[in-house]
This record gives sequence, C-alpha cells and structure tokens, in this order.
Amino acid sequence: MIDTSAYQSLKRLADDPVDLRQGISKDRLLRFASHTKLLSLHYALERVDQRVLLTLQQLARETDAVQQFHAMAEGAFINQVEGCTDRPVQVLHLLNRLMPKKGLDQARSHILEQRRNIIDYLTTCPFERVVQIGIGGSELGPKAIYRALTHHHDAKRRLNFLSNVDPDHTEAVLQAVDPRKTLFVVVSKSGSTLETQVNERRARECLAACGLDPRQHMVAITTPGSKLDQDTDFHARFTMLEAVGGRFSATSPVGEFCLRFGLGNEVVDHFLAGAATMDETALNTDIRHNPSLLSALLNVWNHHFLGINNRAVLPYAHHLDEFVLHLQQCAMESNGKSVHRMGYPISYPTAAVLWGAPGTNSQHSFFQQLHQGTVQTQCTFLGFECSQSKTADTQAHLALNQNLVAQMVALACGQPSENANRRFEGNRCSRLITARQLNAETVGALLSFFENEIAYEGFLLGVNSFDQEGVQLGKVLATALDPEQTALREKLGGLSQVLLDAESAFLGRTK
Amino acid sequence: MIDTSAYQSLKRLADDPVDLRQGISKDRLLRFASHTKLLSLHYALERVDQRVLLTLQQLARETDAVQQFHAMAEGAFINQVEGCTDRPVQVLHLLNRLMPKKGLDQARSHILEQRRNIIDYLTTCPFERVVQIGIGGSELGPKAIYRALTHHHDAKRRLNFLSNVDPDHTEAVLQAVDPRKTLFVVVSKSGSTLETQVNERRARECLAACGLDPRQHMVAITTPGSKLDQDTDFHARFTMLEAVGGRFSATSPVGEFCLRFGLGNEVVDHFLAGAATMDETALNTDIRHNPSLLSALLNVWNHHFLGINNRAVLPYAHHLDEFVLHLQQCAMESNGKSVHRMGYPISYPTAAVLWGAPGTNSQHSFFQQLHQGTVQTQCTFLGFECSQSKTADTQAHLALNQNLVAQMVALACGQPSENANRRFEGNRCSRLITARQLNAETVGALLSFFENEIAYEGFLLGVNSFDQEGVQLGKVLATALDPEQTALREKLGGLSQVLLDAESAFLGRTK
Repeated sequence: MIDTSAYQSLKRLADDPVDLRQGISKDRLLRFASHTKLLSLHYALERVDQRVLLTLQQLARETDAVQQFHAMAEGAFINQVEGCTDRPVQVLHLLNRLMPKKGLDQARSHILEQRRNIIDYLTTCPFERVVQIGIGGSELGPKAIYRALTHHHDAKRRLNFLSNVDPDHTEAVLQAVDPRKTLFVVVSKSGSTLETQVNERRARECLAACGLDPRQHMVAITTPGSKLDQDTDFHARFTMLEAVGGRFSATSPVGEFCLRFGLGNEVVDHFLAGAATMDETALNTDIRHNPSLLSALLNVWNHHFLGINNRAVLPYAHHLDEFVLHLQQCAMESNGKSVHRMGYPISYPTAAVLWGAPGTNSQHSFFQQLHQGTVQTQCTFLGFECSQSKTADTQAHLALNQNLVAQMVALACGQPSENANRRFEGNRCSRLITARQLNAETVGALLSFFENEIAYEGFLLGVNSFDQEGVQLGKVLATALDPEQTALREKLGGLSQVLLDAESAFLGRTK
Repeated sequence: MIDTSAYQSLKRLADDPVDLRQGISKDRLLRFASHTKLLSLHYALERVDQRVLLTLQQLARETDAVQQFHAMAEGAFINQVEGCTDRPVQVLHLLNRLMPKKGLDQARSHILEQRRNIIDYLTTCPFERVVQIGIGGSELGPKAIYRALTHHHDAKRRLNFLSNVDPDHTEAVLQAVDPRKTLFVVVSKSGSTLETQVNERRARECLAACGLDPRQHMVAITTPGSKLDQDTDFHARFTMLEAVGGRFSATSPVGEFCLRFGLGNEVVDHFLAGAATMDETALNTDIRHNPSLLSALLNVWNHHFLGINNRAVLPYAHHLDEFVLHLQQCAMESNGKSVHRMGYPISYPTAAVLWGAPGTNSQHSFFQQLHQGTVQTQCTFLGFECSQSKTADTQAHLALNQNLVAQMVALACGQPSENANRRFEGNRCSRLITARQLNAETVGALLSFFENEIAYEGFLLGVNSFDQEGVQLGKVLATALDPEQTALREKLGGLSQVLLDAESAFLGRTK
C-alpha cells in the first residue's frame, strides 16, 4: 500500500481534510451514499471530499483489491504469508453462500451435502434445547445472529451457548437446562480446542449422572478427518470445509446447525440469501457500488491518514449487542497483524481497536467521551427504518432514530458555547449503515457487508487476514504452566523461570 | 498536572521506559504488588521502575490527589467547573458505604432510612420477578453486579432489566414475563429520562391489558422532589441523594432495591461491606497501599507518557462480562472530558477508551491483535484463586488461571522467531487484580476499587469527573427532530437545515 502513488496523494490530502463544522449540504448527504438492494452506506459525515474519494478509488485500483477479492472467491490459495506458511490454503466462506456460481465442485458438493444432512437430521430431532459447545468463531457469530433475530426465536426449541473454560460459566449453563431434553453440539474446527474439550467432558458427565446415554445427546461439527471427526461417540457428525476460518464460519455448518434448530429453515434460508445478495456487491470495481470496499477504504483513511486508531460500532437496535462482539473478533483477529503477506514486518497502522454497544443505551454510557473526550473514535452507526415486531411502538422507534441522527449531527457539527464545559468541538467523523428492518435477510447482508469489509481491509493493508498466529504463544505458555508438563516447561529455557515466578507470585496460593 | 515538577520528570523518564523483554525477576514480581484485605494489584508487568513509581507518588502529592479524595468523602462541593457550573454539588456515593464514619448527618439519615424502607418493603413483597426500568447508571451497575453473582441468584425472585427505547427490546422483555407476578421498578435520577418514560408507559399498558392495576405493580426510585417523586401513581417511592451520580449509584437505592430482591439481604450486606473495606484503602497517601490511586497513576503514565490511548479490562471470570460495560460507562463518562475543573480547555490526553471481554473467550477473539497488532492496548486482567460454585471443576479453574498468566507473560516477554509471522514483539504492558473468589464481598471491593480509581484519575487530570455535559447536545438535537417541536427547531437557526437534511436523507422513508 505505501508504495502506491495514491498513498502519497492521500498523505498530502490528509494535511487538510474536510472540516465537517462548515455545514453538511443536502446535496452532500444525498451524493455521499451508496445504495444496494438490502443496505445503504451513508458517508457524508466522514472527513472526505470528492478528491479523497477519487484517490481512495485509485488506492483500491493500485492495490488490486477487487482482483484479490475475485481471486479469493474463485478459490485462490491466499491464506498464506510468503516464507512463513507451511501450506497455503483457500478461503472459501463465500462458497457457503454459493459464490462463485460455478466451479469449486468438490467443495460445493460438500457444502450442499452437509446442508441436506443438517436439515434431515433436524427434521426428526426430538430435543427441545440445543447447547452449542464452542468458543471464538464457534460461538460468537451464531450467538450474535440468534440474538439479532430474537423476534424469530422458536419457543419450543431454545438455543444456548457454552464456551468459557471458567467452571462457574459451565455450571450455570448446565444447571439451567434439562439434560433429558437437550442436544449438545460440540463445535471445534481443529477438533482439539481445550475449552471445548473440557466443556464436552462436563456435559457428558452431566448426561451420565442423569442416567442418560451421552452418545444419544451429542453431535459434533468439525473438519473432515479431525480428531473429533474420528470420534464415534457422537450421534451424528457434520463437517465444515478446512478452507473456512472459524471467525468466518457463521454461514457454515457451525452456524447452520444451531440456527436451523433455533430459528427454523425458512429464517436461515432468508439469512443465507441476504448474505448472498450482499456478497454480489463486493465484486464491483467502482467503490460507489461496493460498500464493503468503500467502508474498508474509509477505515484506512481514518486510521492511517487521520490517526484515529479505534472504531466504535453503534447499532440502534438493541439485539445487535452480541453482533458487535462478533465483529470485534472478525476484524481484530483478521487484521490485527504486523507482517505483510509477502513476509516482511510492517510498521504502518493495521486494524483499529473495534468496540461498541447499542444506542440509545450507549448515549447514557460512553457518548460523553465520543463528544468531549480527547481520544478520537471512528463511529459506525447502524439504523433501521422500522422495528422487528409488528406490535412495536412506532413512536418509540422514531425516537430511537431521531436519537441516532442527532448523535451523528452533534459529532459532526459540534456546538460553540461561551461556557467551556458545554462546548462541543465537533468535526468528529461517523458513517451510517441503514436497512429497512432488522430481519433474517438484512442480518445476512450485514454479516456479508462486514466480512467483506474485513477481507478488503486486509487486501488494502497487505496482510493475510485469514491466519491467527498471534494466539499460539499464549497456548504454548499455558500448556507449559501445567504442572504435568514439566518436560515442555524445561524446553522453554529462560522463559520457564519467568513462568515459574509468575506462577508462584500470582497463583502460588491456589495450589 | 502539567505544571508540576513531577510531570517534567515523568516526561524525561518516558524517553526510556523499562523494557519488559529483559526478563521479570521474581523479586520484581513480589515487590511490585499491593496487597489489601480483599484485593491485590500486581503491576510488575507495567513499564515502570522504582524511579517512575517514586515520581508518580510525587505527582499524586503535587496534585493533592489524596486530599481531594478526603475532601470528596467529607462532603466538599467538588462537582463543579469554575465559571461553568451554576450550582456546585457534593459527591456522596461513598456515604452509601458509610464513609466518612461521622458527619453529613442529614444525608446519612436519609440513606439509612431509605435502606430500612427498602428492606421492610421487600420483606412482604409478593412478587416473583422485578423488572428494573432504567438506562445508563440506572441499569449498568446493578445489572453487572447481579450478573457477577449469578451463583447467588434466587430462583424464586428473578430480576430483569429494561432500558433501551428500541421497541423490539421492550416487547422482548415484556413478553418474557408474567405481569401478574411482576413488580416494575422505575428508576430515573432526574425523573424525566425519555427512554424510561417510554418504557414505563408500555409497562403500564401491559399491566392494564391484563386487567391489573398498574399502581399495585410499580415502584419508583428517584431524587427527592423530582417529577417522578411527585407522581402518586406508584405503590411506593424510594429516593437517592441528589449528590450521588447515576454511574456511581450502584450502592444507592438504585442498586439496593433490585439486588436485595434478587440476591437477598445477606448477599447485599456483604457486597456493601466489601466496598466499604476497599474504600478505606483509598484514604492512604502512600501509593503502595492505595491501589486505586496507584492504578490511576499507571493509567496516566500509560496514556499520557507512553501514548497508549485505549485500555482493555479482561476478567478471567465469565460472569464479569457485564461488569466491563459498567466500568466503560463509569470511566468514559467521568473522565472523557476536555475542560479543566478551573474552567479552561485542556489538550492533554484525558480518559482512554475502555473496552474488554472475559478470558479465555477473548483469547479466541481479539487477543491476536493485542499480541501482534500495531495499536498498543493497556491490559488489566482480573483473576480469582478459586471458583464460585463448590461443585465446579477445579482443574478447569486452574486451566483458566494458567491461561491468564500465560497471556500476561506472552504480552510482556514476547518471542523472537525466524518466522516473521510467529514473532511476538512483547514489551506490552499489563496489570493484574486478584481476589480469592468472585463473591459478594469481592464484587463490592472491585466496584469500590474502580470507582475510586476513576475519581483519582479525575483528580490527577484536573477534570470534574462528576458531570456529563457531553450528553446534552444530542438530547437537544433529538428533541429538535421531533416533528411536533418545530418551534424549537427554528430557534436552532442554521443547524436546523442540517437536521432537516439529515432527516430527509436518512429517515425520509420512515415517515
């Protein structure tokens, strides 16, 4: 990215970015918006003008961002860092939404076969509750989607999630369910996730303690050939593609099984269709018709050129609270890197910290700082024209949206005042994503929008968004702390003394 | 702060801070820890040495931080910004924990009287469920504490929270409860919070639709004399002190009523006692025996001198997930300011962005970026020696803590590697707060620790932590967007055109 001529131009343009306090014309509000079938992206309150947008388009062109996206969709082996990765792999989560339309036959058949198997299995499933045991990508996406679609919850088929190795969490979840009526879904891409193994064991103990046969109450979701896939102690096993990353697996069997159980097939089919519809927009080379790419470029502009290193996602829809946590993982685990995919260290800013919470609640929490604090934050608002439930109070929904717009305008325009404490600096950037309603189709579209934005940001920054080497060291060290693993601990040499010290100082009293 | 000699010294010291990759001695681990009766603060993995700590102590002295804390506790009228505030008020949330031990007789009697009234009322309370209707400080603290003490939930007395003006949230909460068995607690300090009024109205409609008398199912918590306090359409009314801020009201009737209902009096008394025990430590002038002050100084060091503008709170206890959201409000709404309490604008960094999520879940989410991203984050880990429930898996709890220590060590020490993608830079700071167990007493202590840390950070930075003028503009603008309020809109002059444009562009189709 930094070797492009667009980069040099953007650096110059960043010396004098648009000042939003000069007023936002109606023309600008109408022009700086990208409308697609399901979602619109409004960016009139970002600190960009026509010159910046043209140069961002040039940056996209010079970095071959759209070609890279096409290559990903068509099955290129892009999950690799030159000289660092043993075995490059494909990145095929889009194929779960049947992109591309042709080719990749083997993977496509696998997906369609698993989908049929899941639907068949659930048709005769006698259970009233599913507890999905999984952590990270095996929990956050499916949980966020289930929560977003609260309105569609099936009262006779409840869904819970069990993730943390913290036994207080495990006991609280297990105590709240009736094991006789519960199916446990053990989800681990590798088949060897510590937390998931511990929780699976406890669930089996719990079933056995009730005189039940654990095998009749357990299914597994993993990759073909994993340790978990070879374990016959399950009533059924379903598999996801190796080429689908955990954090991109919400539309794979990882999400499909539990969501088809808890929301029904019709809702999930609409959800997948919404994602597919939005995916199409990510193929466009014109940034005005490719909101994911445009949003990624705005992230780069704000972070790299304006120096704003954190980004708040602020849905004005209460049930998108968990969705923010899913995006946090997706964005930060994908692009929180400092190695170029060509294998050399990079020092320019990569992913921002992504955080956030729903409005209007967050207005009564951290918005004070967004308006008057000294740290700048990029804000992404999400808004919906109407509510989910037909019985909902339309006046209340209007008040919700009035608050959303008021916050964006307050951030952008600020307010002078004689009273220093009531002064609002303004000129703080935000963007808005809107849809007609928070429903299955638009949740799919939102998921697609953000997944593709994250992929695009990686393409622009030159990082491999699809590995996560940064989580490995902690795993190794945790294992080394295991008292039964002293051999490994000794191999670690100098570090082992630190660990021993840490143990005795922090944890000595627990033993 | 910037006019102190300590500030100048810290600036020089920040040119060459400790490099954590040089190894952490056992001696350092043992010495850089502050132990109190209920909590310990371990700061050996912060980038400080003895000289920095002595200079931070000097900064505390030169800013009169401890004297300011004493003055607050004793009832000084510190909630003001010189030349900006109409009427200075006291800051008396500590009095809810009976600090100071003497004086402030009128406020003290008020607190004790309300406490007796609440206990008496709940003794004969026939309801099986309380729904607390409130937003911001009226929700986040009580909800976080209730969630933290999941282990103590009374199965016969459930507690829910209703906050957002989003009608989908309102309907979901109301549909999940049986109005006949439910008491609604309407909480608003001002008595005129929009969201709370809307939700109160819906709850009354819901009760009336079931043929119930709303007055028999509603109590109010507010300040004496507010609009809500004058409303006789409640079965009972309880009042909090005007001098207790919403975000500091968890130990006032705002938290007490619902927590005494949902957790029982014994648990709440332990919770208050834990807070009181920890409050005592905040009176010490020696930073080694005042963890709240020391932690505030470390925040200032990291943000102001090392340039780290965001802070992750990472509890290794699953049920502290909501607690992070409470801290986010408390810290960012208190110190996300840019005006000095003497009334002049300040340009140095004030509050960092506070975000976070429980481990080990967060290890499978955003820890990739904490280890290998380009944005630095201050990390505060929370750990507990043993689990809450007696039936819990002690091996699982040990694994939880091993992971915690492993992450801290990985952040600090890093790891060189031939493989650029497996390289961990290290030298990333963190601190650890430990307690024996997450129970009522230690949750009280944690609340006290962070509340007092936030007050201390305000004293050091020179801001008034107890107002929130930054939330006013958004409220005014939202009202101006109300079609029925065109008169007000016109008064806003030039801004009104922007609002109209925003409306037509963003929300035109909803009307």
